[in-house]
Amino acid sequence: MATSTFARMAKGQVRHYSAPLEMSIPQSKKQFIPASGTYPKGFNVSGTHVGVKASNTKFPDLALISSETPCSAAAVFTTNKFQAAPVQVSRETLQSRRGSGIRSVVINSGCANAVTGKGGVEDAVGMGGKVDECNGLAEPSTIVMSTGVIGQRLPISKILSKIPTAHANLSSTHDSWLTTARAICTTDTFPKLLSQTFTLPSSPGRTYSLAGMTKGAGMIHPNMATLLGVLCTDAPIEPPALQSLLKHAVDRSFNSISIDGDTSTNDTIAILANGAAGGAPVNSSSSNDYTAMRDVLTTFAQSLSQLVVRDGEGATKFVTVRVQNSPSYNSGKLIASTIARSPLVKTALYGRDANWGRILCAIGYTQGVAEGTVVPERTSVSFKPVDGSPVLKLLVNGEPEQVDEERASAILQHEDLEILVDLGGGEQGEKGLGGEEATYWFCDFSHEYVTINGDYRT
Amino acid sequence: MATSTFARMAKGQVRHYSAPLEMSIPQSKKQFIPASGTYPKGFNVSGTHVGVKASNTKFPDLALISSETPCSAAAVFTTNKFQAAPVQVSRETLQSRRGSGIRSVVINSGCANAVTGKGGVEDAVGMGGKVDECNGLAEPSTIVMSTGVIGQRLPISKILSKIPTAHANLSSTHDSWLTTARAICTTDTFPKLLSQTFTLPSSPGRTYSLAGMTKGAGMIHPNMATLLGVLCTDAPIEPPALQSLLKHAVDRSFNSISIDGDTSTNDTIAILANGAAGGAPVNSSSSNDYTAMRDVLTTFAQSLSQLVVRDGEGATKFVTVRVQNSPSYNSGKLIASTIARSPLVKTALYGRDANWGRILCAIGYTQGVAEGTVVPERTSVSFKPVDGSPVLKLLVNGEPEQVDEERASAILQHEDLEILVDLGGGEQGEKGLGGEEATYWFCDFSHEYVTINGDYRT
Repeated sequence: MATSTFARMAKGQVRHYSAPLEMSIPQSKKQFIPASGTYPKGFNVSGTHVGVKASNTKFPDLALISSETPCSAAAVFTTNKFQAAPVQVSRETLQSRRGSGIRSVVINSGCANAVTGKGGVEDAVGMGGKVDECNGLAEPSTIVMSTGVIGQRLPISKILSKIPTAHANLSSTHDSWLTTARAICTTDTFPKLLSQTFTLPSSPGRTYSLAGMTKGAGMIHPNMATLLGVLCTDAPIEPPALQSLLKHAVDRSFNSISIDGDTSTNDTIAILANGAAGGAPVNSSSSNDYTAMRDVLTTFAQSLSQLVVRDGEGATKFVTVRVQNSPSYNSGKLIASTIARSPLVKTALYGRDANWGRILCAIGYTQGVAEGTVVPERTSVSFKPVDGSPVLKLLVNGEPEQVDEERASAILQHEDLEILVDLGGGEQGEKGLGGEEATYWFCDFSHEYVTINGDYRT
Repeated sequence: MATSTFARMAKGQVRHYSAPLEMSIPQSKKQFIPASGTYPKGFNVSGTHVGVKASNTKFPDLALISSETPCSAAAVFTTNKFQAAPVQVSRETLQSRRGSGIRSVVINSGCANAVTGKGGVEDAVGMGGKVDECNGLAEPSTIVMSTGVIGQRLPISKILSKIPTAHANLSSTHDSWLTTARAICTTDTFPKLLSQTFTLPSSPGRTYSLAGMTKGAGMIHPNMATLLGVLCTDAPIEPPALQSLLKHAVDRSFNSISIDGDTSTNDTIAILANGAAGGAPVNSSSSNDYTAMRDVLTTFAQSLSQLVVRDGEGATKFVTVRVQNSPSYNSGKLIASTIARSPLVKTALYGRDANWGRILCAIGYTQGVAEGTVVPERTSVSFKPVDGSPVLKLLVNGEPEQVDEERASAILQHEDLEILVDLGGGEQGEKGLGGEEATYWFCDFSHEYVTINGDYRT
């Protein structure tokens, strides 16, 4: 019975989720692909075809990002206890170089090089070493990432043989950046690339650039793991400052999104800062430049990470959940993430059902929040429509509202939705305290999600 | 696009998930309904039609379970911070009576009486009070439960007017037990009722009985919350012993199952022990009777809770995950529950995909396990087939096996599956320690799950 249902589903359904035929971009996603960009000075990139998966006969699956000069570098890695070889190797490289002297990031898609033992570590070291060789460097200076199937070894000689080509192809054009962003995709339906310019208070006349690419779409068929991201800037930033800036930004962006709540063996977000645009180095967390850089980086990382949610497997909704007036940021974030991960909330949103009871329930069963954070009679829940019309109150101070179901339904017809949870400061609210805010971005659970992830490995 | 996909799905699909038309039982579930039972002495039960939901014009939706004599009673309630009115009231009743003198449990389906403020509490008190009145009792002696929509008040006068009928209908026949078990169902596709006899070491010639009913099927349309369960025995058990026995059993049964990981506002499992079969009271946790009673109750609660998994919304698989050689029971259980809740594991099982990478990933990202519990190179994962054939090894001491995909696929064709995770004692394994075991039961995520939970409220 189940099999036939599954087969019927699979047949009856337009599979518009996985990397489309010939890498064509779904019409609805084209708006997310930039037609041009402002890229940081001194960075060159390339996307090259290797054929890591034998079935891939022409699409780029090797990305190389390289700076003409040594960079400060930092990374945030997966907390999964099973850490893929490239994660182990890149962590070691960053530690041994103390976040300095990094020149490149090399990434392959098609195979995660995870759960591959000692041989896998050698492969990851080999990939980085080959890039260093092309750069004429003796010391390890390359961050390595992989994404794809777990438990299979890389076709390492194929990869190594193509790294010189990748190096020869390095270029700073917009097209190169876009091809590189495509090369790291797995079942993503579109490449995720952003760039922007910014200034720092210490030299307001100087223009800096920041560019980034990411891939995601959940952990997928067959064991496609991994959220990867690379950020590059030509601003000068000292290594310790860069690490704390990245952590702040990732906490509020890539670590505040959820497709399915699963955390992969390979997740890595790295940043390179080559200082090619000149100016005084950002080095103290108390400086104005640091604060400005933190805000620029956080907002940029949020925009980039939101593209991953836009491309969530089978997603039909883009939902922001904002937990306001929480006694602490951490408790607020835990609550936001619990709502974002609740299958019942996610399926209700897919069904366009203003089912606030499920949101409330998720708030109530959030684990690990500090005592006094959730006080039922101080808790309110609303929907904030994207069209700028007034919020729709669902629950006010623990009492359900008479909800205008027609208006709720109209709000839920939009792809975008914001859920506001107001904790009223929890117990501290009585003293007028507790004003922290945490935001999370997530997508719904659809039939397509089940089809994608329930599909046989082929 | 999404809407049309959804509509197509909804149309193309046989909706065999929700309470079937005319309460007919799906053919595949009939095997789980007992044709007879051995019920505890002195307990009488009834299932009565009230019409809590106006659309319900004939099916029983009020359950009354009543003992002819006062009982010891205990309960385990939801940990959700938003506790429904019946949870608050029943907790208070048990506390004020110190777990003694309880006579009845009254349950309505169709409305959860959750997030209903002060009025909701009055309604719950009223329901219990009416039952006490029928029993001719002045003190609160009734446990109250509700399941159904969140945020709506009970049609309390309708319910109160039918309680005397429910009381008049009390009976000890198998049919009455079955009707009562049906009355607590929401979208369950079959009533969940079990009974058994047992003996205690102190009087081996004496036969005791234990019966229980439950309902579940996830938190559902529209806000059907709640896992409910009622256990009744004619063994004599003192209140403090009864509470600790129930907690032990529920930890290893109802708190070791997962449909979707959501914990409702109303979850309650209660037990009544009237001692009608005589014998010495079970009162000391160091006695042989206590140990025997604990094992009987735990195994019984496991069987009962497994029926909830069998009826998980849209479920096509019944999966046991057994985490062996864990340094602690708690860490093992956290890992088991993380696997059981991973959407990627659940969809892979639905798709009959031997995707051990997802299981490994879930082990690796389990939050809250003690340091040294998960050591990649000591971790093994296998499938244990239900047909008694040898286990299929997927990962041995952190190294992937060459998996016979055909055999894997054959194993996954069965409805039942056991996943074995061997932690090898974690870090303690080197000293030959770390031998705890934790078991969890769960079901897969199917297209039907999304359809059920994404459906519009009607």
